[in-house]
Amino acid sequence: MDMTTSPSFRYPLESMKPRTGAGGTTRGASVHEFPVSVGIAGVSMRLAAGSMRELHWHANAAEWGYVVSGRCRTTLLNPDGATETDEFGPGDCWYFPRGWGHSIQGVSNEECHFILIFDNGDFSEDHTFSVTDWLAHTPAAVVAQNLGIDANVVAEMPKGEAYFAQGPVPNNRSPDATERAYPELVSKHRYPLLAQQPRRVAGGGIQFIASVKEFPISTSMAGSLLEIEPGAMRELHWHPNADEWQYYLEGEAEMAVFLAEGKVVSDRFKAGDVGYAPMGAGHYIRNVGKGVLRILIGFNNGHYQSNDLSAWVASNPSDVLASNLGIAREDARKLPHGPLFIIPGPAEL
Amino acid sequence: MDMTTSPSFRYPLESMKPRTGAGGTTRGASVHEFPVSVGIAGVSMRLAAGSMRELHWHANAAEWGYVVSGRCRTTLLNPDGATETDEFGPGDCWYFPRGWGHSIQGVSNEECHFILIFDNGDFSEDHTFSVTDWLAHTPAAVVAQNLGIDANVVAEMPKGEAYFAQGPVPNNRSPDATERAYPELVSKHRYPLLAQQPRRVAGGGIQFIASVKEFPISTSMAGSLLEIEPGAMRELHWHPNADEWQYYLEGEAEMAVFLAEGKVVSDRFKAGDVGYAPMGAGHYIRNVGKGVLRILIGFNNGHYQSNDLSAWVASNPSDVLASNLGIAREDARKLPHGPLFIIPGPAEL
Amino acid sequence: MDMTTSPSFRYPLESMKPRTGAGGTTRGASVHEFPVSVGIAGVSMRLAAGSMRELHWHANAAEWGYVVSGRCRTTLLNPDGATETDEFGPGDCWYFPRGWGHSIQGVSNEECHFILIFDNGDFSEDHTFSVTDWLAHTPAAVVAQNLGIDANVVAEMPKGEAYFAQGPVPNNRSPDATERAYPELVSKHRYPLLAQQPRRVAGGGIQFIASVKEFPISTSMAGSLLEIEPGAMRELHWHPNADEWQYYLEGEAEMAVFLAEGKVVSDRFKAGDVGYAPMGAGHYIRNVGKGVLRILIGFNNGHYQSNDLSAWVASNPSDVLASNLGIAREDARKLPHGPLFIIPGPAEL
Repeated sequence: MDMTTSPSFRYPLESMKPRTGAGGTTRGASVHEFPVSVGIAGVSMRLAAGSMRELHWHANAAEWGYVVSGRCRTTLLNPDGATETDEFGPGDCWYFPRGWGHSIQGVSNEECHFILIFDNGDFSEDHTFSVTDWLAHTPAAVVAQNLGIDANVVAEMPKGEAYFAQGPVPNNRSPDATERAYPELVSKHRYPLLAQQPRRVAGGGIQFIASVKEFPISTSMAGSLLEIEPGAMRELHWHPNADEWQYYLEGEAEMAVFLAEGKVVSDRFKAGDVGYAPMGAGHYIRNVGKGVLRILIGFNNGHYQSNDLSAWVASNPSDVLASNLGIAREDARKLPHGPLFIIPGPAEL
Repeated sequence: MDMTTSPSFRYPLESMKPRTGAGGTTRGASVHEFPVSVGIAGVSMRLAAGSMRELHWHANAAEWGYVVSGRCRTTLLNPDGATETDEFGPGDCWYFPRGWGHSIQGVSNEECHFILIFDNGDFSEDHTFSVTDWLAHTPAAVVAQNLGIDANVVAEMPKGEAYFAQGPVPNNRSPDATERAYPELVSKHRYPLLAQQPRRVAGGGIQFIASVKEFPISTSMAGSLLEIEPGAMRELHWHPNADEWQYYLEGEAEMAVFLAEGKVVSDRFKAGDVGYAPMGAGHYIRNVGKGVLRILIGFNNGHYQSNDLSAWVASNPSDVLASNLGIAREDARKLPHGPLFIIPGPAEL
Repeated sequence: MDMTTSPSFRYPLESMKPRTGAGGTTRGASVHEFPVSVGIAGVSMRLAAGSMRELHWHANAAEWGYVVSGRCRTTLLNPDGATETDEFGPGDCWYFPRGWGHSIQGVSNEECHFILIFDNGDFSEDHTFSVTDWLAHTPAAVVAQNLGIDANVVAEMPKGEAYFAQGPVPNNRSPDATERAYPELVSKHRYPLLAQQPRRVAGGGIQFIASVKEFPISTSMAGSLLEIEPGAMRELHWHPNADEWQYYLEGEAEMAVFLAEGKVVSDRFKAGDVGYAPMGAGHYIRNVGKGVLRILIGFNNGHYQSNDLSAWVASNPSDVLASNLGIAREDARKLPHGPLFIIPGPAEL
């Protein structure tokens, strides 16, 4: 990102025209549409019952997914030969390492809506590889030899990329139902984020988080769900090790990004908007609406780290604070003495 | 690589004019000659008996070597102070970390032919540093002081880069013969690849592999030797973590690279050609000749990972496959149920 | 760096006009001023008694500091919540990971002079974030809410970036003195480099070193202090894993950088000059003055590795050396048989 101009850190993702197909819609924001998002790209996708984002892989990015509503089923191949078929509901998230083949299918009667986050802002179709695109452009004899099937079966396959495909909603009565011998709370690639006991600040809000500590497969990304009460704010802070990508789920926010040399870019965000804060850039998020503010946040580092203003101030002797901030020693002593994280709103707000 | 055009994934290395010197010849392919090879460069070198690629190092790449024919001897300095003098014959490979000083000398009566692979496509002479080039351009008094020798000895040294140098073929009768107290099968920097029990597919072919698992020093690269029977093919697959560099040793092949968005680039390869498949790009290699097909393959990642079409298909419930590929459920159930890796040729081919 | 021209590897840092402020001065050399320094930038800073480089962080680089004279106090916030307040005197060094908030204050009656080294040549003000700059450009109500203070206190704060700030010299009589329950020789972020038993070559010189082995927090950088006797030289060598940044503290040197293809760039250095040797480029440093030569050296890798000519020569059979260097076998046998590191000066120099 060129920090010499004042770029926009807001992209109205859900207002954009989607790509549509057999029961599915998708809207994407890469660095091509949203220039500040150099390190992370995102997608909002919706799948009707049975609709499938076909078997595909991403050559240059890992994928972190979060289900907003409805249910979906994923399939995944690990290059070591292990396979996973998992089901996700609202509040569940997944992580698929860069280049691993997978599919996603809506399996609930209601539409399934999920957000995908990629750890590379230069995410595009030419780095996404679909199975039908591949087979359609490979000689039929080669496909038949590879899959051990007759040429007439190959002839039935799509003549180009399907991207979305419509199938039946899977159910347990099907002979193709995927078996699972034992129940699991956390599988290798699935983490039920909203089932977690979140970090909580009385009067301020809560934070759910899935970093590599909670969800070991997600080595290159972390995700969180932040709820902020009216008038409260996620305080001034920065992430020393990661860019931050935000998807506003609910409510109204003011988010400001500090770029040094006197430059701060502030904007208003509402449900469906995407925000971005580059690695090391200071920022805060304030709930300026009447209801709760809910934000899905992704980071391009498996380890979650934040430097918060209150904790920073608290780490300094008060003579340093008084000299640095040009305030009286007795005022400096009243500054925060520990981390606040989310600051409840003042009564007058 | 710019994937918006259709680049060539073939470079006829052995048809190129070599650089020659005292008993040696070398042909190189970097990204400057072979534009798709962004991540890996390669060299084919031949040394007559006693001819030496002089003491040198590479500032921006590690080196993986494989001996095709003849025998050679290498010397190596580890920055921790350890040293190694090793001998290599056909089928042996080496790994020298980036920046470590080394030399290679032909030690058999027949010419020694070896292939070098570097984990940086931007490999060039200005990143390769030779000892004679260095000493020739350093004041003679400094060289004398450093080496503890008289100025008249310094005056005998080459006035510029030697690159190749001719010496006697070393033998055990020489007082300079390098001693070794105990025999070793694998030394720190040498792995006898063809002495391995390879992966084997009946009717299909075999694969020898040296990754960081088998050869711990090779943290940034892996290599393999693939033999494919007539009519058989290394099936559709991709590597999620590495670019692939191919040197065709014997036979005739069809190799096709899938670049997404409907783009597949297919070409014919014969002995002496170099091929390339970028990280994440699907590809297959089919033996289209009458004899065995033998290929030396290098990867710019110490860990070998491959996603094969058969394993991917086998990892999905058949309802997903039927919906995705637009085929009948009963045909979907006939698709591969496990990894095939190399597919034997059908009788009619 | 473009190695096709002959760039300068010398930058006369202390001859440049400094930026000055409340009791402080600073001179910097990034890739913008000193084009070869792609991988490392440096700063020479001086703080009068009580003067403070205010609370700030660097978004794109870790910081390694070394105190030349005087004493200073630093404060640091670790994103895990730990804090450190340390004092440094001459010969002590620190390491602050990329993006961690910190301040530095002169605490001795004499001016404190220190050198800062950053593991990114593209170091600039737009990647350095100061607390006053941030607060001055954030709405006063937000600052008041975040810090829990009245708007009239916020109104007293600087209206823009302070950069330097003047405060009282801290002392133990102050109620704000930072407490420490037990003495420590090495703290997490502080290492007393000159208290180390250095590597020593009789007649040649000494080397103090702080790599990740001695100073575990410094994962991305290492530093050393080299003293070379008159006429002696740090022999021809290269670093396979790091760029090298030099600050000449005392004496006169000849330093030559070998760039391959017959190119060597030699220059004279004196106290206050900065030198640079790119990763993999051969170089030597010779004391050409009458007194001791003292150099502070930083590397952009936590692990210190060097390949020295004497050790390289010693690692080869003498027939290889004779053939390669074109000298008689009996002269080759007289070449160094082990590492020399620093070569004492000959009597005639």
